[in-house]
Amino acid sequence: MREALAWAAAGRGTVHELFVGESTEDRHAELIDAARETGVRVSPLTDKAVASLSETVTPQGIVAVCDLVEVPLADALDGRPKLVTVLAGISDPGNAGTVTRVADAAGADAVIFAGGTVDPHNGKAVRASAGSVFHLPVARVSTVDEALVACRAAGLRVVAADGYAEADVDGAADNGELDGPTAWVFGSEAHGLDAEVLAAVDASLRVPIHGAAESLNLATAAAVCLYASARRHRIG
Amino acid sequence: MREALAWAAAGRGTVHELFVGESTEDRHAELIDAARETGVRVSPLTDKAVASLSETVTPQGIVAVCDLVEVPLADALDGRPKLVTVLAGISDPGNAGTVTRVADAAGADAVIFAGGTVDPHNGKAVRASAGSVFHLPVARVSTVDEALVACRAAGLRVVAADGYAEADVDGAADNGELDGPTAWVFGSEAHGLDAEVLAAVDASLRVPIHGAAESLNLATAAAVCLYASARRHRIG
Repeated sequence: MREALAWAAAGRGTVHELFVGESTEDRHAELIDAARETGVRVSPLTDKAVASLSETVTPQGIVAVCDLVEVPLADALDGRPKLVTVLAGISDPGNAGTVTRVADAAGADAVIFAGGTVDPHNGKAVRASAGSVFHLPVARVSTVDEALVACRAAGLRVVAADGYAEADVDGAADNGELDGPTAWVFGSEAHGLDAEVLAAVDASLRVPIHGAAESLNLATAAAVCLYASARRHRIG
Repeated sequence: MREALAWAAAGRGTVHELFVGESTEDRHAELIDAARETGVRVSPLTDKAVASLSETVTPQGIVAVCDLVEVPLADALDGRPKLVTVLAGISDPGNAGTVTRVADAAGADAVIFAGGTVDPHNGKAVRASAGSVFHLPVARVSTVDEALVACRAAGLRVVAADGYAEADVDGAADNGELDGPTAWVFGSEAHGLDAEVLAAVDASLRVPIHGAAESLNLATAAAVCLYASARRHRIG
């Protein structure tokens, strides 16, 4: 909510209206004042009505009506991006949102929701992102290929995170392979990346597994990959 | 399940019995054979009875009765550990299990469930660990202090992951601070680490936030920290 107001204040979109439950007005006083100051209409409703507007099991008693956060792909990749995250066929909204949060924390310039990936406006994805969908440009395209072509045209080297890859992310970081502008492509936790996506990328890297675990979950693997890039970008 | 049988086969504990639902026997044929081969009694039950033994919403139709996975703290820290994970007051079973999985993947020698941390046998924690509670020694102690004293006695430098720390994990890795044996201490996602824990550790480090995100979730932050140590240990 705070993130949505900051996003609107930065001129990146509009918060049209805030609906507040009668019993939660006091708790949200600061947010309500901030909204009114920026010209957002605040409408009190019954708690039940606000809860019915919200999709969550434990509603917070406050709901904002915003513009869509999505921007055109060309806009998301404008301005020489150094680090981009491509979500390729990630249908689980919690995973898509959490990886968006990690991308934001690692300083990514954009996140592209591609192929069968969940809608970035999905309530669970927005919540799992902890506001990050409002922090960095989010684009959505119908095919992964379209995302990869655009990333390459924007000067990014396209790297797939793949648990079965031969090369690993530590070795690639040491070799200087992650020093340039990079687009990381992540697939679904259940199915990984399609063979045609793996054939289309410039390189595939795995997170090394040093112990007996079979794998990492998607968000923790993405954290290792994106922070490896961030580290190299800050050294270089 | 497979992990529990492997754990028993390695002589680290015993699987006493396997209960299998009547309609899922075919699906689990391989596991049932593996269990019988190692002398585990396999008992068919009705699907409903197996579901009632399981705590999950979508039961798999198979339940194992095992020894406790916990080992005494001294055993967990035996043999010059290089990387240990201390869970300090992590009451959320999903978080405790996921961090255990990350610790396993990063090659940690042990995980210590300390203070108010959930029981490592909690069904949700075991499932979130994806079998990792069976892969590496897991100890449980009632106070965080006891864990820190034992870690230091085992030659480990004790480092807290703290979002408010001044120094960050990348700088520490570059300075060689993570080259030696290290025990990482992680607190709850909601409350972080107690002031007395922060006062008792040798250093506190944060994961750098390069973008606008306020923080990372616990498992992704732990992945960045533990993999930074793993990377340094493999270089050194």
